[in-house]
Amino acid sequence: MLKIPEYMKAVVLMGPDKLEVRDMKVPVPGPVDVLIKVESCALCGSDTGLIHKPFPGQPPYGEFIIGHEYSGTVAALGETVDEFAVGDRVTVEAHNGCGRCRNCRLGNYTGCLNYGHPEKGHRANGFTTNGGNAQYVINHINTVHKIADNVSFDEASLATNLGCVLYGFETLGGFIAGDTIVIVGPGPLGLSAVQAARALGAGKIILLGTRDSRLKVAENTGADIIVNTKKQDPMEVIMRETGGKGCDIAIEASGSEAGLGLSIKSTKRMGKVLLLAFPHKPFPADFEDLALNNKHIFTVRGEGWANVGRAAVFLNKGIVDLKPLITHTFPLAKINEAFDTFNNRIDGAIKVITKPQE
Amino acid sequence: MLKIPEYMKAVVLMGPDKLEVRDMKVPVPGPVDVLIKVESCALCGSDTGLIHKPFPGQPPYGEFIIGHEYSGTVAALGETVDEFAVGDRVTVEAHNGCGRCRNCRLGNYTGCLNYGHPEKGHRANGFTTNGGNAQYVINHINTVHKIADNVSFDEASLATNLGCVLYGFETLGGFIAGDTIVIVGPGPLGLSAVQAARALGAGKIILLGTRDSRLKVAENTGADIIVNTKKQDPMEVIMRETGGKGCDIAIEASGSEAGLGLSIKSTKRMGKVLLLAFPHKPFPADFEDLALNNKHIFTVRGEGWANVGRAAVFLNKGIVDLKPLITHTFPLAKINEAFDTFNNRIDGAIKVITKPQE
Amino acid sequence: MLKIPEYMKAVVLMGPDKLEVRDMKVPVPGPVDVLIKVESCALCGSDTGLIHKPFPGQPPYGEFIIGHEYSGTVAALGETVDEFAVGDRVTVEAHNGCGRCRNCRLGNYTGCLNYGHPEKGHRANGFTTNGGNAQYVINHINTVHKIADNVSFDEASLATNLGCVLYGFETLGGFIAGDTIVIVGPGPLGLSAVQAARALGAGKIILLGTRDSRLKVAENTGADIIVNTKKQDPMEVIMRETGGKGCDIAIEASGSEAGLGLSIKSTKRMGKVLLLAFPHKPFPADFEDLALNNKHIFTVRGEGWANVGRAAVFLNKGIVDLKPLITHTFPLAKINEAFDTFNNRIDGAIKVITKPQE
Amino acid sequence: MLKIPEYMKAVVLMGPDKLEVRDMKVPVPGPVDVLIKVESCALCGSDTGLIHKPFPGQPPYGEFIIGHEYSGTVAALGETVDEFAVGDRVTVEAHNGCGRCRNCRLGNYTGCLNYGHPEKGHRANGFTTNGGNAQYVINHINTVHKIADNVSFDEASLATNLGCVLYGFETLGGFIAGDTIVIVGPGPLGLSAVQAARALGAGKIILLGTRDSRLKVAENTGADIIVNTKKQDPMEVIMRETGGKGCDIAIEASGSEAGLGLSIKSTKRMGKVLLLAFPHKPFPADFEDLALNNKHIFTVRGEGWANVGRAAVFLNKGIVDLKPLITHTFPLAKINEAFDTFNNRIDGAIKVITKPQE
Repeated sequence: MLKIPEYMKAVVLMGPDKLEVRDMKVPVPGPVDVLIKVESCALCGSDTGLIHKPFPGQPPYGEFIIGHEYSGTVAALGETVDEFAVGDRVTVEAHNGCGRCRNCRLGNYTGCLNYGHPEKGHRANGFTTNGGNAQYVINHINTVHKIADNVSFDEASLATNLGCVLYGFETLGGFIAGDTIVIVGPGPLGLSAVQAARALGAGKIILLGTRDSRLKVAENTGADIIVNTKKQDPMEVIMRETGGKGCDIAIEASGSEAGLGLSIKSTKRMGKVLLLAFPHKPFPADFEDLALNNKHIFTVRGEGWANVGRAAVFLNKGIVDLKPLITHTFPLAKINEAFDTFNNRIDGAIKVITKPQE
Repeated sequence: MLKIPEYMKAVVLMGPDKLEVRDMKVPVPGPVDVLIKVESCALCGSDTGLIHKPFPGQPPYGEFIIGHEYSGTVAALGETVDEFAVGDRVTVEAHNGCGRCRNCRLGNYTGCLNYGHPEKGHRANGFTTNGGNAQYVINHINTVHKIADNVSFDEASLATNLGCVLYGFETLGGFIAGDTIVIVGPGPLGLSAVQAARALGAGKIILLGTRDSRLKVAENTGADIIVNTKKQDPMEVIMRETGGKGCDIAIEASGSEAGLGLSIKSTKRMGKVLLLAFPHKPFPADFEDLALNNKHIFTVRGEGWANVGRAAVFLNKGIVDLKPLITHTFPLAKINEAFDTFNNRIDGAIKVITKPQE
Repeated sequence: MLKIPEYMKAVVLMGPDKLEVRDMKVPVPGPVDVLIKVESCALCGSDTGLIHKPFPGQPPYGEFIIGHEYSGTVAALGETVDEFAVGDRVTVEAHNGCGRCRNCRLGNYTGCLNYGHPEKGHRANGFTTNGGNAQYVINHINTVHKIADNVSFDEASLATNLGCVLYGFETLGGFIAGDTIVIVGPGPLGLSAVQAARALGAGKIILLGTRDSRLKVAENTGADIIVNTKKQDPMEVIMRETGGKGCDIAIEASGSEAGLGLSIKSTKRMGKVLLLAFPHKPFPADFEDLALNNKHIFTVRGEGWANVGRAAVFLNKGIVDLKPLITHTFPLAKINEAFDTFNNRIDGAIKVITKPQE
Repeated sequence: MLKIPEYMKAVVLMGPDKLEVRDMKVPVPGPVDVLIKVESCALCGSDTGLIHKPFPGQPPYGEFIIGHEYSGTVAALGETVDEFAVGDRVTVEAHNGCGRCRNCRLGNYTGCLNYGHPEKGHRANGFTTNGGNAQYVINHINTVHKIADNVSFDEASLATNLGCVLYGFETLGGFIAGDTIVIVGPGPLGLSAVQAARALGAGKIILLGTRDSRLKVAENTGADIIVNTKKQDPMEVIMRETGGKGCDIAIEASGSEAGLGLSIKSTKRMGKVLLLAFPHKPFPADFEDLALNNKHIFTVRGEGWANVGRAAVFLNKGIVDLKPLITHTFPLAKINEAFDTFNNRIDGAIKVITKPQE
């Protein structure tokens, strides 16, 4: 058993847009939990969102430790846990459902109907319970997945991202062998989607974006055609590449009205649109095109159906390589600089990682 | 073999909003077709739409016989047809795919990628090829389904409607045993959806609408709770009836922005929204609610996956009763009066039927 | 709060084929449990099996209270439970998964990978933990479903049966609107399958069996064609009724080699066979027919995917009527007479129910 | 337009086990067909089977040209065909459904209910209509898929094989990201399954067989663990590699009773067994294990759901490499030597190819 200190450094949300590194008590795992010593914690757009304005079910200012994409080492076990051993290298998923609502009962735990009710057993680390921008964190074992020695903690901290993407593909049916996929938006989700699509046997993968620096990352990771929509008409490319039919699947990873419009338009009759990003306000969409052409819209909330487990296998076997997405790392103490870099995409930032043990 | 005349009466679209009953040549069935002597042809909102403004792939004015929801008797057989016999009582579906595009190859023929290209084999009677507001019509045998003696031709002409609704339920997964269903819009599709949901084992069925006369029709056909949204707050009712969780499935059958908004809002986390009606212009929707709560939007184009066959069985076995939807019948000669009654909902019109042999 | 006694009457398995009614301590519900005062407990073929020879994970003789199909009233609540109230009338499902293995995580809790390990949280009342042939029993709230006042406790105790059948239909895809279904074996599961198929919109339902008394029960509950295979050639009937194509779905509910053979043979190309009964030894099957004709075999273990909840809705709304299956009731004290009646089908016994409070 | 000769060399089945290369008329494509000049035709176990004993629907001796796995160049177009051009390099699938039965209507054309009835439009080249062990053959365009210049005709002729395997994976649900797959039998189907599983993102792939020469082929094409079952206990390996749970999916590609037994036994609770090979007689299976553990058996007939199209994309993009399966090629004239090599696995034969133009 590792020696566990009584106190740890943690990033606490003190008020809107106000983060502080503070000394907090190291939490104690419950019977089906593990305590994780965090090595890497990736910043995510949702962090930025809830730092600015609380999400539903968020803990009070002054108590809430943020961070939901992290990896580390198992440091202590809950009393019934034999699925893990101290010292195991692991990555996590954020959501643990209550286990007692109808959605959880059926495996749909990211859609837990007791979301934000920890007294019913629901936990979403970094959203409704404490997260991983800290030296230690507790996770229910359902949310923990082993990683192999050859996977770095930094790369492993992106498994949640990849898990979301895989959950999205599973939502679409999951069998995309040979299909043509359009992906709009070369952010972390879009770039992960390129690799996931390749790993699942997609045919042609067409990535659309506006920043050459990000589009470049996709060149060697599976995109067949890369379109900077400021320089080329994306519909012209898509229609030429699909014999005028449209793509089988369009993945909207930009969160914008234009991105959704392009996703709907570029999809063939009976095609599917996947909303990987979160739009933040209602906006218009061409429902007539959707209905007349029998296209469907699917959404992704969280990394459901245990897809972080699948993501971990992908990393362990080297099926995907998320390292190109990691542009910056910071010690925990520099959390504000880290968010500044991430939010303002300073220096071409894509994924920014903090190191709680440094 | 019945004696087939050389000429017949048919409703021809002569120009925008201009229908005439004219003498047309009785068509000759191809090798895999049957000739149907039409007894009943129901008017549909799509008819109204294309009479006013042509749909893509529509035949030229002066040649195009409208009507896609009809029933009648097999009058002659194509040379290879032994699946039917002269005299068989039948109903139809509108869409016959080309059989050679990828969508058709996979059974998705209402999404035929050669839609509107009869030279490639695609036919959508009443849309891109001649329809059934006529004394005779030809149909590919794939689009023809037998009806039992106990089913009237009038009721049988509504099978396409029911087929669309069943296709929608199949699109959603099809297993709705015990589920709570909200249906918005008590038009022909919404009212058929009430009965289909009941026939498939739905739990609570909640119908929302604004016209008491139409809502009344649903009282004895399966709706458990009927809400006139002008008199009651529908969200209050839905949340009360679902323990604050929202419904499992919402069916938008009104075609309106408000209807879609209500459908999205009333659905539980991980729930499904089905767009049964066709919105005619882009309008805003709450994609943040969809994404945060992992709700999906499905659409219905046509009566796909042979669901008119399933609808025919439902009628033959008396599993559903579409007769309450039929409010008016007219002889073919009164086609303009029939459309006037239908479009302006004169006299509480729901489904209006023409009788080509009268 | 009801007054709960300290001791209760319960049917304890004392050794192979040796049941005794004994005084046992009333169990205390855990934090997410309820205590149920049992009113009706139905006997099942699995009871007979494990009384004779222990199932894997079965508690020791002298401690094990049998019975997994029961209904009653909530008598006390675990400390976190607000989903139920004391006095609620309820029925149950047997299986509560560990909630921590991969199968449970994905909603497949009847296939829990920690089956028979109560220390990991798995419980299968009446199989691996104590059951409901007793005056009181505890159930995790996930396994409890409310029943309406109009449903008798006796009928409600058959909800598990119906839940198994609905789980089977969901396993097949669940959308059987208009399909032709062959059901082999008019036992409790087969007869429940007739009603479930009808409730889900099946087309023709063909029931095969050898006992006229049991076949007769199906006459008014949804079977269209009933064949006593001792008097009629079932394949001849099936092929005549399906135009020589075979049925869409065959449900094997007899547990016999002949039944499985008939199920495979009667199914059309691309059709599905559902194994609802448990064969007790390996036997030959025509895998060449399966492979050449692309037929699949699905199995049912337990009442998975929360289908007892769906079954409860079916009972509450009167969608099915299980009362005709109930042939005998006995007070708990006559448990051996009850099993004798059930096992030997005395007096046309189908479902036999014990009454723990009498 | 290429110059098409009037006569061609073709392998004709003259009687049981009697093949002859004869001069036959070059066939003329129908309106939706192409004429293919065949460059490579792979031999298959089904050929061996029907040469020995006719399959249902097989053409008469003296007329029937065998061969269903082939590739070549489009030599002439049917009158309505613009989907292909003369000179296109193509591979094929064997089955073209009638397009008019319920199975075909729903995209299930390999399960065509008019199988063996060419007068209804059904064609299965090399089974019920003439095949590709000939210098020319006609194919409906639905059965033709373009291949890229970088794919050799020899490799392309194996696309049908790969299409069967992909169809099998699609039948299972198709989303196998990170799953553990056991494959029994390192024949052409088993070895293709290894590569397909890898291409679809499988986790651990465990291949079982008895011939080191064949097992060796899998070493560099995706198998993680290779077990010669004569030397190692396969269950011991599988249970060790799966933490005692069993694999997610087992693929039976040996056609033997032992292989099916191993497939059932090695699968985890709720797991799936896929029958890729054709057993040729009924044999016993452990249905109790299947039922108690909720395992399902799926079968594969043909290369359904257009999966040869997906296979062609895999070859075009280099996602899989089937070349290691090709061990021998022969000119058409040496057809008997070719079958002898294939059937008796002379010289380590796996896939044997004839060259009709040599």
